[in-house]
Amino acid sequence: MISTDLLIIGAGPTGLFAVFEAGLLKLKCHLIDALPQPGGQLTELYPKKPIFDIPGYPAINAGDLVDNLMEQIKQFQPGFTLGETAEIINKLEDGTFEVISNKGTVHHAKAVAIAGGLGTFEPRKPLLENIEKFEENGVEYFVKEPEHFRNKKIVIAGGGDSALDWAIFLSDVASEVTLIHRRNEFRGALDSVEKVQALKDAGKINLITPAEVVALKGDSHISAISIKSNDEIIDIETDFFIPLFGLTPKLGAIANWGLEIEKNAIKVNNALDYQTNIDGIYAIGDVNTYPGKLKLILCGFHEATLMCQSVYNRINPGKKYVLKYTTVSGVDGFDGTRKEAEKAVVMKID
Amino acid sequence: MISTDLLIIGAGPTGLFAVFEAGLLKLKCHLIDALPQPGGQLTELYPKKPIFDIPGYPAINAGDLVDNLMEQIKQFQPGFTLGETAEIINKLEDGTFEVISNKGTVHHAKAVAIAGGLGTFEPRKPLLENIEKFEENGVEYFVKEPEHFRNKKIVIAGGGDSALDWAIFLSDVASEVTLIHRRNEFRGALDSVEKVQALKDAGKINLITPAEVVALKGDSHISAISIKSNDEIIDIETDFFIPLFGLTPKLGAIANWGLEIEKNAIKVNNALDYQTNIDGIYAIGDVNTYPGKLKLILCGFHEATLMCQSVYNRINPGKKYVLKYTTVSGVDGFDGTRKEAEKAVVMKID
Repeated sequence: MISTDLLIIGAGPTGLFAVFEAGLLKLKCHLIDALPQPGGQLTELYPKKPIFDIPGYPAINAGDLVDNLMEQIKQFQPGFTLGETAEIINKLEDGTFEVISNKGTVHHAKAVAIAGGLGTFEPRKPLLENIEKFEENGVEYFVKEPEHFRNKKIVIAGGGDSALDWAIFLSDVASEVTLIHRRNEFRGALDSVEKVQALKDAGKINLITPAEVVALKGDSHISAISIKSNDEIIDIETDFFIPLFGLTPKLGAIANWGLEIEKNAIKVNNALDYQTNIDGIYAIGDVNTYPGKLKLILCGFHEATLMCQSVYNRINPGKKYVLKYTTVSGVDGFDGTRKEAEKAVVMKID
Repeated sequence: MISTDLLIIGAGPTGLFAVFEAGLLKLKCHLIDALPQPGGQLTELYPKKPIFDIPGYPAINAGDLVDNLMEQIKQFQPGFTLGETAEIINKLEDGTFEVISNKGTVHHAKAVAIAGGLGTFEPRKPLLENIEKFEENGVEYFVKEPEHFRNKKIVIAGGGDSALDWAIFLSDVASEVTLIHRRNEFRGALDSVEKVQALKDAGKINLITPAEVVALKGDSHISAISIKSNDEIIDIETDFFIPLFGLTPKLGAIANWGLEIEKNAIKVNNALDYQTNIDGIYAIGDVNTYPGKLKLILCGFHEATLMCQSVYNRINPGKKYVLKYTTVSGVDGFDGTRKEAEKAVVMKID
């Protein structure tokens, strides 16, 4: 069982920054995310695209913002349960919470902050009869660990940035990469399209367009796929089939936790601490709603900060916290590191 | 008369970022600040010190944060009235506002946001009988324009970073720099203390410690100061006397505008838009107060953003605004510039 002070559901920018603010208050955090890596939409959907409205950054690529947030919080040693979704929540008699993931991982926490963004990003699945049979047996909707495909035959399907980028990356890892797409045209960064063209010309990517997967074959593990291209059915031997057709956000199990929901978002008390209708459960960032709500990253940062103060008061009742400025008091990491402004000296000049 | 959509009182980080959010909504801004340059406390009090709690910056020097904010807002061409304080506000019949500065500058705006931080930073003045007579006639509490002191004799008084840093900087500009301090020890960055020591050794700074200014002399303009050092009175000829004894924040004239004040801060409606008790006047950042308020820069950014939405609705009644993400829609400057993410291409690979 994983024990922590504050369990954060969602490791996007808002959830990550909450670790920092909690850390300043000496609260330990653990994060759960359905995606295989931290960063939420920023990492999964648009890591190379610039954001222009992060205060103090005239422009920053989404992936760089996540890297910077990870660097900013690392001294507070957050724990991560990645590739799992929060399914069940139980409020225990002492007011603490137990949260169990879809894979059975049990988390215990004194407070819970839902920073779930637009929801769990679930892959759009191709409509193939037996696809669920092959999930975890050769069908992968995310590339979690590229080494998994070392010297294997893979088929990637899709026509966007993910399909292009993983085809490029895995052409150096897999023994054979086939990229199929239902149109002749791909939609992505110019650079990526040009790289795929070059890899195709060099014989490192086997490109088949227009084509659609019509059947998956194999016993316990996938062994081949059938594709339909120009009215012809072709079978391609493969070890893995990776359909990258995009992600759709779903609020998922959280919608059944008894929280007040309005238009697919969780209602919170924005006049105080972004707490939900359940005492001890907070909702911050894009997942919440209140009068005047704006789904902006910078608003999530503020909400995370006020939420942490409330969690501190919940965990330390009656203890008075006096706000300290990081410039004045420095930052003490849980790993023993200390960041601080250079101290002024008091020195005679003679 | 200066006319604008949104008049922002205070050009600290919160006020500056408000220009960006207003700009996205096509609202023009003008800022008033008592200090001679934008940035508020960050520029005036600790430009070289790191801040550790700006989201996405593991550490950033306060001065760099201001530079970045200025860069971020420049395409929205904010106007500035610097070195002046907002004294009088009149709400006109049409619901717009007229704000007049202590120097008589008249500003007209459709809405007013007070982003005044801890208040107007007023210099701590030495207790010298005739000092007010020489203000603007040789006594300067800020170094607004270093060139003003080119080839002049100056006396700086003080023992902290400002006194050290300006003595160093002006030793290359003024014909003669005298630095006096009531103690032998200075308190500042090690680097600055060492530089002053070196400049003193090189004869470029005339250092007198321990010493106190006891009288100012001159007719219409200052011509000399008397100092007391080791029970001896010495007269020093000078063109300028620059006492740098620190600043104290004062809410100032704003306190008499009829706003609800609590513990030296302005009460706002944090459940909606950070508006004060006077319709059309908002308060954002450290200057405001509400339940759970934290005086943090990142909170000011959020407050500025929600305030701008409210101002938009005030100025464009009935017009529906749909939030656009900067990554998706780009940023169109008032100067004709456009920032945008690289567009995806749709391209055939063959």
